[in-house]
Amino acid sequence: MSRHPSTATERPIPAQQFASDNYAGICPEAWAAMEAANLGSAPAYGEDEWTRRAADAFRTLFSADCDVYFAFNGTAANSLALAALCQSYHSVICSSSAHVETDECGAPEFFSNGSKLLVAQSTDGKLTPQAIRALANGRSDIHFPKPRVVTITQPTETGQVYTIAEIEAISATCRELGLKLHMDGARFAHACAALGCSPAQITWQAGVDVLCFGGTKNGMAAGEAVIFFDRALSEDFAYRCKQAGQLASKMRYLSAPWIGVLESGAWLENARHANACARRLAKAVAGMDGLELIFPVEANAVFLSAPEPVLEGLRRRGWKFYTFIGGGARFMFAWDADPEQVDSLAADVVELAHAHAEPLVAA
Amino acid sequence: MSRHPSTATERPIPAQQFASDNYAGICPEAWAAMEAANLGSAPAYGEDEWTRRAADAFRTLFSADCDVYFAFNGTAANSLALAALCQSYHSVICSSSAHVETDECGAPEFFSNGSKLLVAQSTDGKLTPQAIRALANGRSDIHFPKPRVVTITQPTETGQVYTIAEIEAISATCRELGLKLHMDGARFAHACAALGCSPAQITWQAGVDVLCFGGTKNGMAAGEAVIFFDRALSEDFAYRCKQAGQLASKMRYLSAPWIGVLESGAWLENARHANACARRLAKAVAGMDGLELIFPVEANAVFLSAPEPVLEGLRRRGWKFYTFIGGGARFMFAWDADPEQVDSLAADVVELAHAHAEPLVAA
Amino acid sequence: MSRHPSTATERPIPAQQFASDNYAGICPEAWAAMEAANLGSAPAYGEDEWTRRAADAFRTLFSADCDVYFAFNGTAANSLALAALCQSYHSVICSSSAHVETDECGAPEFFSNGSKLLVAQSTDGKLTPQAIRALANGRSDIHFPKPRVVTITQPTETGQVYTIAEIEAISATCRELGLKLHMDGARFAHACAALGCSPAQITWQAGVDVLCFGGTKNGMAAGEAVIFFDRALSEDFAYRCKQAGQLASKMRYLSAPWIGVLESGAWLENARHANACARRLAKAVAGMDGLELIFPVEANAVFLSAPEPVLEGLRRRGWKFYTFIGGGARFMFAWDADPEQVDSLAADVVELAHAHAEPLVAA
Amino acid sequence: MSRHPSTATERPIPAQQFASDNYAGICPEAWAAMEAANLGSAPAYGEDEWTRRAADAFRTLFSADCDVYFAFNGTAANSLALAALCQSYHSVICSSSAHVETDECGAPEFFSNGSKLLVAQSTDGKLTPQAIRALANGRSDIHFPKPRVVTITQPTETGQVYTIAEIEAISATCRELGLKLHMDGARFAHACAALGCSPAQITWQAGVDVLCFGGTKNGMAAGEAVIFFDRALSEDFAYRCKQAGQLASKMRYLSAPWIGVLESGAWLENARHANACARRLAKAVAGMDGLELIFPVEANAVFLSAPEPVLEGLRRRGWKFYTFIGGGARFMFAWDADPEQVDSLAADVVELAHAHAEPLVAA
Repeated sequence: MSRHPSTATERPIPAQQFASDNYAGICPEAWAAMEAANLGSAPAYGEDEWTRRAADAFRTLFSADCDVYFAFNGTAANSLALAALCQSYHSVICSSSAHVETDECGAPEFFSNGSKLLVAQSTDGKLTPQAIRALANGRSDIHFPKPRVVTITQPTETGQVYTIAEIEAISATCRELGLKLHMDGARFAHACAALGCSPAQITWQAGVDVLCFGGTKNGMAAGEAVIFFDRALSEDFAYRCKQAGQLASKMRYLSAPWIGVLESGAWLENARHANACARRLAKAVAGMDGLELIFPVEANAVFLSAPEPVLEGLRRRGWKFYTFIGGGARFMFAWDADPEQVDSLAADVVELAHAHAEPLVAA
Repeated sequence: MSRHPSTATERPIPAQQFASDNYAGICPEAWAAMEAANLGSAPAYGEDEWTRRAADAFRTLFSADCDVYFAFNGTAANSLALAALCQSYHSVICSSSAHVETDECGAPEFFSNGSKLLVAQSTDGKLTPQAIRALANGRSDIHFPKPRVVTITQPTETGQVYTIAEIEAISATCRELGLKLHMDGARFAHACAALGCSPAQITWQAGVDVLCFGGTKNGMAAGEAVIFFDRALSEDFAYRCKQAGQLASKMRYLSAPWIGVLESGAWLENARHANACARRLAKAVAGMDGLELIFPVEANAVFLSAPEPVLEGLRRRGWKFYTFIGGGARFMFAWDADPEQVDSLAADVVELAHAHAEPLVAA
Repeated sequence: MSRHPSTATERPIPAQQFASDNYAGICPEAWAAMEAANLGSAPAYGEDEWTRRAADAFRTLFSADCDVYFAFNGTAANSLALAALCQSYHSVICSSSAHVETDECGAPEFFSNGSKLLVAQSTDGKLTPQAIRALANGRSDIHFPKPRVVTITQPTETGQVYTIAEIEAISATCRELGLKLHMDGARFAHACAALGCSPAQITWQAGVDVLCFGGTKNGMAAGEAVIFFDRALSEDFAYRCKQAGQLASKMRYLSAPWIGVLESGAWLENARHANACARRLAKAVAGMDGLELIFPVEANAVFLSAPEPVLEGLRRRGWKFYTFIGGGARFMFAWDADPEQVDSLAADVVELAHAHAEPLVAA
Repeated sequence: MSRHPSTATERPIPAQQFASDNYAGICPEAWAAMEAANLGSAPAYGEDEWTRRAADAFRTLFSADCDVYFAFNGTAANSLALAALCQSYHSVICSSSAHVETDECGAPEFFSNGSKLLVAQSTDGKLTPQAIRALANGRSDIHFPKPRVVTITQPTETGQVYTIAEIEAISATCRELGLKLHMDGARFAHACAALGCSPAQITWQAGVDVLCFGGTKNGMAAGEAVIFFDRALSEDFAYRCKQAGQLASKMRYLSAPWIGVLESGAWLENARHANACARRLAKAVAGMDGLELIFPVEANAVFLSAPEPVLEGLRRRGWKFYTFIGGGARFMFAWDADPEQVDSLAADVVELAHAHAEPLVAA
């Protein structure tokens, strides 16, 4: 390890970082749509043509007459959706790695005025019918918040993808237990790309009631769509958005980018590319002594377990990454990930792992 | 009136509308800054250079070491600021025409978990020390929410501007009564342009504790700045923003446009232009029989009282306007208001007013 | 006026006060029931026999299979009921003198997480179909909380009683406008006594959805009943009570007193007596020069307008009263009001009014 | 097991139950005080002499000039106190068996509008400095609620008592980390009785900021005292109580019973008796084959692990108990526990344990 510092400081800083897919900019298709929408005036608060067209694009994409609303970010989208599905004295079943539990600073509790999250410990980030049933049936007295909603993240925060069958099994359990099913789709496009299925197949056709379809992590500036497949659940939802500070006056700048990515297919291409970059890194480091993929690489994230000197070496060479899930390094690839930079990262990982492994072998 | 319909339908739709200043698009300076910010990657959640630079631009503008936060829209900015200044059992004193009371769907009550707005009836939209004192001293028992904050809109929803002396008188009253002073500056730039004063003069130098500085109505896509001049009041405010769904992950797209308009001076030029268009219309219709300016035209709004046939005639000719304040037509001018279109509107007003006045004279 | 002070200080302090009906103690029937309930152990949280029997007593009283819950006080009962009827972005139509607006410190807003009260200015404290319609139809855009509930106080805070026809007219308006009807019955028994009607006639038979039936002001220590005539509206209401800190563990002490007053008829006798005392005072002072009953005396309150020297004289003689409604003195009679003391108060009023009137006549 | 049913049905139902200490009635001292307070009228909302005297009694008891408020029940008292100590985006550190986490239906989250409970897994129900430090230092980014308060239950829900030294160690950790310390003292008297210390020694002298002192489980009808030793923390707390529906109009019925039990010493005698009954049962069953005390018996609870047939046998003989903590039977003794009944329960336990053990030995 002592040999690296000097080398590291000599090396150029990597041209790109894979710490998070929200470090990336706006993709060309989204940008062009914003540019087109910026010509002249348009009615405010979603009464414009762009917003109507974007909502229709979602209906076409899902082959469903769903209700579509736009929120500024994923925290708000998830919280608004969950608050619409439960009262303050209800509870929401989620996985222990769910973003709503770990990274939204109590937003679901705030928007719902107190709904409790019931957390199922999960090593891989997925919820299962068994885990849901255990939490839903754990208590039935009025001294504990009544379970009312299940939320799953697709793909999970660990970069794994629920299969259609897994979602169907979960939704069947929900129906049996009288629970609604919410999907946090911050990286929903990546799940579609990974599964090669239609958006409808892993949502309403599989029993999902409400989807938060994320744009920010897939090439947009901001703006997540809240999609109600069961339209009875969206009653007065526009009021809820307004009161919670989530109604954009110049809505076209939230909605037009969706037209850009949906009508062009970029939403899926962006995700495919990001997923491919993750697989590229995973493949390059597979089988190395001392390295391990903590979770199967199914979407755009790679969680890499490596000896601390290897991680430290990567940091010294300028790579940035989080270690908050599973203890290893998380690399997250965006729509604009440069394959050459991915290769450069992979080469550094391999080199550092070799360097670390040798002394051990020698000893 | 019967002579107009056919004429009206033959006329081309006006090329521009003055129903609201949030119908306008993004101004060139803001757009260029977004474009520059869109190159490459940047850390998320405000840890980027653009956001740091934008905050500094505000500090420079106000000649003050203030705390700066960005929220997605004005409803959220106002509500977050008010919630930071009071607890749920406190109350907020405002004018009867205050946006927080009339057009935010209960957002201040929602964000604060129940703070009541104490409404001072006001014909011109302004609060006065007398009105504040009356409400603040009206009740002092625990059965009524304790007054804690005063909020004023600068310029008011009626298009009028508080003078420096008026704000100083209000802030002196607030200090005397133990109240904090919040300024809803959705059109703050227009007030600066109208008064020809520095931003500091009508805010912290006049005793304002917190300002919500609006960008959306002055050429930006979204994004309002919450500025704490008393930094003790902003403790943990970043957590509040995050929990309330107001922390942008790709913050640079909210902050960079501020750099664009602040560093170039466009923030003030845009407002000056809009104000000038309002004066242009006001001047053109002044003194006409049957027409009356409901409020002094001091910023970018014209409130015009006219006989219903005149208003109906304007509608038939394609002009759009709101009549929710004062009963007359509100015309609101944005940074991109076309003076020719303003003249065209003025001509229609004049023509219709004449036409309506004649029969009365003849009779 | 100068003749009175010495006299006043010589007089004994009145043995009883009529400042509020919640100054009174627990009536014998309620006390006896508590005493009976105090023998031995009983299951907690309402699973006891007393609570079951009390709920049944309400069902018998109302000839209806209603849902019955017990809350600790009127503020909580009203707020829980209103929160059950609307979401945070909805609004509640009430009279300007409604207790929920004037004396609950923002509790309805707190329990509902932000529902706004839409206040109809009312000189007599009553809501009318016209006033409701005006507020309900005033705004229909998402920038203002959507009206969802109407609340009326029976009797009103001004001591007046809605007739059956008035309530029917209001409920018809509510149904037409899609609004629920809540009745704040803090002094519900006094209304029944005044009208000589059955409880059913002015509640569910007249279209009331939810009633908060007050016990505290009618001889109980604490405890208001929330009664849902439309049982679909009480879904999960027990959870709501629990979460809001309104589920008594030793519930029998809240419920048994209801058995005591309902089964014995004391609930109505207490109210009749209190109403009679109010009429007794009203009759004694009627027609006096300079005195005026501000509101018709229909329940257990007398609002008396009198020259300030008369009011001051009453205070000096030791009488306590509030002047927060209508500017005059409010005298409120409880189940235990002593008719001799009422007469003593009446005599003082008459004497002071005479003394004050004489100089004027002489002048 | 098959031999028992017939026997069981022949046996008389036990005269007393030990399922919960809130099944018990009102103790004589509390009842007498209520009776005394019921003579005549008294000002409402805590402006009466009884309430003043009760607050003074607490100040005397704690030898401290503390602020005292009364809430209707423990859920409300805890939630109000926690809400006073933190904002919605803050978090509260508690043990996994804490009542606020397990049995208040999300009340802390509701009253605070979203504060998250950070749960330390604990086998014995106690928090430790290590556990607090781990949770407090676990996250320091704005995506997770900022820790602000620690709450401990004294005695714990497992019937154990924090020693003075343990509390001091916890409060030192709190001060070091900038956290406030709240004590849920639903059975606070039992802790004092167990430790033989003064109330001051395990509260403010040991670093506790706010105590919720429970009366309901120790012989009162309702009413918990919220005691602020750091009076700066109780600013506007009366408004908070009022808004949350926790201000009793006839406050004397909440406060007078406290006078009854504090001035007579019954508060401590009741607790001593209850503790002694728990020890009596524990001693009687100690050392029996197949039986185990799950937690040390330090206050008024006994948690007994026994083979399921033994528990089933107890149920058949009419004994009621909960099994929600630790899986065994919880027996909880109140101020009025009858030692003969305790012996009767003990005898049944012993007999059933023997009967269950024999066949196993024979086999």
